[in-house]
Amino acid sequence: MKAVVMTGANKPWEVQEVPTPTAEPGQVLVKVRASGMCYTDVWATQGYGGDIYPQTPGHEVVGEVVEVGAGVHTRQVGDRVGTTWVQSACGRCDYCRENRPLTGQTAMNCAAPRTTGFSAQGGHAEYIAVSAGGTVLLPDGLPYEDAAPMMCAGYTTWSGLRDADPQPGERIAIVGIGGLGHVALQLAKASGFETIAVTHSPDKHDLATQLGADHVVADGKELHDLGGADVLLITTNAFEAAEEAMAGLRPSGRVVLSGLDFTRPFSISSEGIPFHMMRQKVIGSTHGGRHYLSEVVGLAGRGKVKPIIETFSLDQATDAYDRLSTGKMRFRGVFLPHGA
Amino acid sequence: MKAVVMTGANKPWEVQEVPTPTAEPGQVLVKVRASGMCYTDVWATQGYGGDIYPQTPGHEVVGEVVEVGAGVHTRQVGDRVGTTWVQSACGRCDYCRENRPLTGQTAMNCAAPRTTGFSAQGGHAEYIAVSAGGTVLLPDGLPYEDAAPMMCAGYTTWSGLRDADPQPGERIAIVGIGGLGHVALQLAKASGFETIAVTHSPDKHDLATQLGADHVVADGKELHDLGGADVLLITTNAFEAAEEAMAGLRPSGRVVLSGLDFTRPFSISSEGIPFHMMRQKVIGSTHGGRHYLSEVVGLAGRGKVKPIIETFSLDQATDAYDRLSTGKMRFRGVFLPHGA
Amino acid sequence: MKAVVMTGANKPWEVQEVPTPTAEPGQVLVKVRASGMCYTDVWATQGYGGDIYPQTPGHEVVGEVVEVGAGVHTRQVGDRVGTTWVQSACGRCDYCRENRPLTGQTAMNCAAPRTTGFSAQGGHAEYIAVSAGGTVLLPDGLPYEDAAPMMCAGYTTWSGLRDADPQPGERIAIVGIGGLGHVALQLAKASGFETIAVTHSPDKHDLATQLGADHVVADGKELHDLGGADVLLITTNAFEAAEEAMAGLRPSGRVVLSGLDFTRPFSISSEGIPFHMMRQKVIGSTHGGRHYLSEVVGLAGRGKVKPIIETFSLDQATDAYDRLSTGKMRFRGVFLPHGA
Amino acid sequence: MKAVVMTGANKPWEVQEVPTPTAEPGQVLVKVRASGMCYTDVWATQGYGGDIYPQTPGHEVVGEVVEVGAGVHTRQVGDRVGTTWVQSACGRCDYCRENRPLTGQTAMNCAAPRTTGFSAQGGHAEYIAVSAGGTVLLPDGLPYEDAAPMMCAGYTTWSGLRDADPQPGERIAIVGIGGLGHVALQLAKASGFETIAVTHSPDKHDLATQLGADHVVADGKELHDLGGADVLLITTNAFEAAEEAMAGLRPSGRVVLSGLDFTRPFSISSEGIPFHMMRQKVIGSTHGGRHYLSEVVGLAGRGKVKPIIETFSLDQATDAYDRLSTGKMRFRGVFLPHGA
Repeated sequence: MKAVVMTGANKPWEVQEVPTPTAEPGQVLVKVRASGMCYTDVWATQGYGGDIYPQTPGHEVVGEVVEVGAGVHTRQVGDRVGTTWVQSACGRCDYCRENRPLTGQTAMNCAAPRTTGFSAQGGHAEYIAVSAGGTVLLPDGLPYEDAAPMMCAGYTTWSGLRDADPQPGERIAIVGIGGLGHVALQLAKASGFETIAVTHSPDKHDLATQLGADHVVADGKELHDLGGADVLLITTNAFEAAEEAMAGLRPSGRVVLSGLDFTRPFSISSEGIPFHMMRQKVIGSTHGGRHYLSEVVGLAGRGKVKPIIETFSLDQATDAYDRLSTGKMRFRGVFLPHGA
Repeated sequence: MKAVVMTGANKPWEVQEVPTPTAEPGQVLVKVRASGMCYTDVWATQGYGGDIYPQTPGHEVVGEVVEVGAGVHTRQVGDRVGTTWVQSACGRCDYCRENRPLTGQTAMNCAAPRTTGFSAQGGHAEYIAVSAGGTVLLPDGLPYEDAAPMMCAGYTTWSGLRDADPQPGERIAIVGIGGLGHVALQLAKASGFETIAVTHSPDKHDLATQLGADHVVADGKELHDLGGADVLLITTNAFEAAEEAMAGLRPSGRVVLSGLDFTRPFSISSEGIPFHMMRQKVIGSTHGGRHYLSEVVGLAGRGKVKPIIETFSLDQATDAYDRLSTGKMRFRGVFLPHGA
Repeated sequence: MKAVVMTGANKPWEVQEVPTPTAEPGQVLVKVRASGMCYTDVWATQGYGGDIYPQTPGHEVVGEVVEVGAGVHTRQVGDRVGTTWVQSACGRCDYCRENRPLTGQTAMNCAAPRTTGFSAQGGHAEYIAVSAGGTVLLPDGLPYEDAAPMMCAGYTTWSGLRDADPQPGERIAIVGIGGLGHVALQLAKASGFETIAVTHSPDKHDLATQLGADHVVADGKELHDLGGADVLLITTNAFEAAEEAMAGLRPSGRVVLSGLDFTRPFSISSEGIPFHMMRQKVIGSTHGGRHYLSEVVGLAGRGKVKPIIETFSLDQATDAYDRLSTGKMRFRGVFLPHGA
Repeated sequence: MKAVVMTGANKPWEVQEVPTPTAEPGQVLVKVRASGMCYTDVWATQGYGGDIYPQTPGHEVVGEVVEVGAGVHTRQVGDRVGTTWVQSACGRCDYCRENRPLTGQTAMNCAAPRTTGFSAQGGHAEYIAVSAGGTVLLPDGLPYEDAAPMMCAGYTTWSGLRDADPQPGERIAIVGIGGLGHVALQLAKASGFETIAVTHSPDKHDLATQLGADHVVADGKELHDLGGADVLLITTNAFEAAEEAMAGLRPSGRVVLSGLDFTRPFSISSEGIPFHMMRQKVIGSTHGGRHYLSEVVGLAGRGKVKPIIETFSLDQATDAYDRLSTGKMRFRGVFLPHGA
C-alpha cells in the first residue's frame, strides 16, 4: 500500500510503497478514508517524539473496517470507525495498575502505550491496523473528511472545555483561532455558552463571528475591558499569548492549557492582583475520558461542529507538510488516501 | 474440572465435573484460588437474573493466570488477578456507543455485557476463562481469600463511598453490618472519616467497634441524637431500615443505595422537614470506574481492609448456600477450589 | 399603609390598613413595586407554615429603597432591590455555627430564620422592611413585574438546574409547565441545553415550544421513546407525575425535587432496571447560594427569561387568591401595590 | 487603650495609647484575648498593602464580645468570637453584585472590603470593633491563644486543602513546615490522608513526624522517588521551592498556591513530561467559604490541630516583629493583650 513515511529526524516526508498490515488478534484493519494533520506531526518529524523512524505519521484517522482480528467482538467489517492518538495501554505499569486507562482517563501516562503515528503506524496511509478497543463508531452520515479532525482537534478541545467544568451562564474565551481554535469556538457555542474569540489576526474576525463568536477581541486587555471570561481555552502553542490573555480572566476563572510551547515555561504573573487571591486555576488538559471522544463525534454527527479543511492526496504529502509546518493551513489538512 | 452448577430456578446447587475452559483470543484462563459468595448468588439461583441455567455462579473471583489467549498483551502466565461481575461490554449498543464502558463507567447499562456467573461462567469452579480487559492485577502479598471479597463487596461499597463524594471532616454512617457493611466500615475508617455503625443487632456492637466504628447506634433516631451523619451507606437490602435511618441524615446529606429491595420501592418521606429543604440526595450506586476497583484492591493490599470470612471447598457448596441464603454467613463465604 | 393580611388558618385574605414599617438598624425600607404570588402563599394560608397569623404573605418582593437603617453600608435610598423567602439567619443555632448561611447555602435549615411572609411581614403590601443583607440589587431596565417572580420561581428553578450539575450536551426535561415550569424551561434553554417539556396538558404544547422547548411530550414513556433526559426538573407538586416521568430518565440521570407533595412520599420504583444500577440520583433542592439569585436576576435583566404574568392591585387580593389556589393563574400572579 | 501601630512604610512598630473604639450599628466590640502574627503583617509594614498608615496590624483576632451594636441579632455580650482578614464587603461593586461575598466566597475580590489590619483597625490591641457578620463563634474550651492562628494560618491552609478537592486515599504533601505548614500538616493528617512533609531543614524532620507526617523528604526529587503526591500544598513564599517540588507531583495532581512570592512569577516547566499531558492543575487559593473557617475552628476545638506558638505582650511588639520578619518565629507568634 501507499503510505507517507518519516524517514528520520527533520527529513522530508516520503511517499512509499509499504506492506499492507493485517488485523492481528484484538485489532481491526481499517481502510483509511481520511487522515487529519495535526501540528504534532511536525514535532514528530522534528524529533520531539523520539527516534521513531521510519514511521508513518497521523493520528486523526477514520475509515472503514475491512478485516476483524481474532477475539474482537465489538467491531464488524463495514463499521465506520475512527481512532486517535493512544490506541491502548500496556496494562502493567504503575499507572495502568491504577486502572486509569480502563477508566477512560487518558492512557498517555502509561509507560508504554500503543500510539498512532508514534510507537505504531499512523494514518497517512491507505490502510492501518488498530486496537479494536481504541476505535470509536462514527455516526451515520458524518462525512469522513469532517470526522477525521474530531479525532484530535475536536477531542482535545472538547476535553479542554469539559475539564474547565464550565457552569451555565459562564463566558468562554478561545485564545487562537487556528486548527484547534476554530473547532473549539464551534464547540463552545454549540454548548450554549457566550463565546469570545481572542486573536491577533484582524483577518480572522469575520470568520470567528461566522463560527459562533459572540465577541472578538485582540488580546487580554480588550478581553478585560469587555468584562472578562471565566474560561480561557488556549489553542495556540505560543505561551506568551496565553499568559497575556490572563489579563482578561475573571475571579475564579480557569485557563486550560491543551498544548505545549517547547520554547518556554508557562508563567503565572506575580504582578497586579495575585493569582491566589483571584482564586484562579491553570489546568493541564489532553485527551480525556473516551466518552469525550464519543460526545464530540456525536456533536459533529448532528452538525454542531464542522471543521474547515484542505484536502490532499497522499501524493501531495510534501506540499501538505509545507503548509502545515509553516502555519499556512486553513484550518485543518486532511489526507484522502482513496480520494474523495 | 469441578464446578458448582445452578441447574434451574430454585434448584439446589450441584457440584459437577464439567469441561475445563480454554483461553479464547482476548481472554486469560485463571486457576481459581478463591471465589467469594455474594447474596446476588442467591438471587441468581432464585431466578431473578433470568433463565441462565445451567450456569456456575460467583463473581468475586481471584486466582492465577495459567494461559493467555491470542491478542492479549496486558496479562502474563503467573499473574495474580481478580475479576468482577462485568467482564466486558458489547461495544455496539446505544450505551456503549457513548463509550461509557470504555471510560470505566459501569458497563451494567450495556445491552449485552459479558457477566461473570450470569451470561458467562462464574467463579465457583476450579478454572475460569475471562476477558483480559476485565481483570485487575492483585498486589503482592495479598492473600487470595482476602482479595476475593474485594471484587464485589469491596468494589460495591468503595464505589458507594466514592459516589457520595465525602468531604474532609464529614461523618459516614454504615447502615447494616453484614457482608458488605463490615467491609464498608473499614473502608470509611481507613479513609479518615468519623464512622458510625447503624445496626439493630446488639451482638454486632463490639465487632463494629473493633472494625473501626467510632460510634454504634441502633437506628435513625439514635443517629439523629448523636448529631447525625452526612452520608448513609446502605449496605442492607431492607429498604425499611434504610428509610428509617434517614431520620439521622444531616442537611445536605446523601443516602447511597448500593442494592435493591425487591419487595418494595424506596420512599422519601414527606413528613417533617421536607427532603428538598434539607437539600439531601438519594444516590444510586453500583460498581463504578475500574480505578475504584484498583483502589480498593490497593487498600486491601496495604492491610487497610480485611474481610471476615468463612472458607469452603467446592464440595461444601450445599452447606455454603444454606448459610448464605439464610443470612448465617459471618461475614463473607469464600470457596477455595484448590484448598488453602 | 395597605396590606394583604392572612387573619387565620384557612381564612380569606383581607386587605387592611396597617402601620407602615420603618427601617430598623440593619434593615432597609422598600416601597413595594411588585410582589409575586407563589403557591406557598396558599400553604401559608392553609396553616402548613404554622400559626403565623396575622401575617402578610408574599416572598417575591421587589421595589425601591426609600429608607436605610443604621449600620447599613451596602444599600442606598433609590436602589432597586428584591428580596426572597429567607432574609437572614439567627447566626447561633447548630446549623448557623457551621456558617452555612454566611456561605450562601440556604438558611432554611437555620432554627430561627427571618422569613418573608412567614416569621416576618411579606410583600403583598405597600411597604416592607427587610434585612439589608437579604436584598439583591436589580439590573437597570428590568421591569419590576418581571423581576418579582425571579425571587422565588426563578431562584428555585435556577437552583434546581444548577444543583443538577448539567454537563454540556445533556438533555433537560421540565416536568410541569406552570408557574415554575414555564420559567425553568426558559432558563434551561438560555443555558444552551436541549430541552423537553413534559406536560399532560395538550393546550400547553404550543406555548412550551414558544418558550424554548425543543420537544414536548406527555409523560415518561414518551420521554423514554424520545431517547430520555439526563435531568428531570420537577416543577409540579404532584409526585405521581414526577415518579412516572422517571421512566424517561437516562443512566446517570438526575431527578431534581424542588417542592413537596404533602399528600404522599416520593417513591423510587424497584421494578425494571434498578435505580442503583442506573446510577441515578434524586436531588432535593431549594433556594441555593445567593449567587444563584444574582445569576437568575442577571438572566432576566438580559432578557433571557421573562415570566408570563397576571397583575393585580392589592384590592383585587380575593380574586387573586382564588385564581392562585385553584390553579387558574397563567402563569404567575403579581401584585402591583402602587400601580403599573 | 494600648495598641500596636504601624506609623509608616518600613517604620518600626510602636505601642501607643489610642482611643478605645465602640460598637457602631452592625458591629460588636471585642476585648482582644489573643491576636496572631502573620507574615502579611510584615508586608503591611513594608508598604505592600498601600499607604494605610497609621494603622494597627493583625488579622488573626479572637476575644470576648463586650458590646453589641444596634441591629446585631447574631452576637451577644460574652460570646467568644474570632475574626479574620475580610470582615465585610461593599455590596455594590461588580463582584459584590454577583453576590459572591454573600455566598461565602472570599470577599477579597470586592472593590472595597473592610479588612482587619488594613482598611480597618487590626487585632494587635486591647479592643477591636468588627462587623458582626465577620465574626465566628468559637467552640467552648478552645484556648484563645490556640484559636487565634486558626483565623488566618488555619483558615488559609484548610481552604487550600479543600480547594484541592482531595479524594479518599490520596497523598498530600505539605511544602514548607513553618507558620502555615505546621498547621496544614496537622489538618491533612486529621482528615485521614497520607501526609508527606517537604522541607529543606533537617532540624524539622522530627517535628514534622510528631505533627503527623507519614514521610518527610527534602525536595521534589525525593518526593518523586517516594511515589509522588496527589496534592502539593505550598505554604512557603518561595516559589522556587514550590516549582521544584512539582517534580514529585503525580498525574492528575494539583498544586495549591496559597500565597505569593513578590520577587518572581510561578513557572510551570515545559521540560520532561508536559504539564498538559500530566493533566495537572495549579490552583490559586485563599480564604474560602466561611464554612471553611467554621470547620477549621471546629477541628481546633476537638483538638485535631494545635498551633505551636510563642506568646508576647503588646509591650513586646518590637521583639515580636523582629522575630517575625527574620523568620525566627517557631511557629506562630501570638499577642496576649490582656495576659495569659
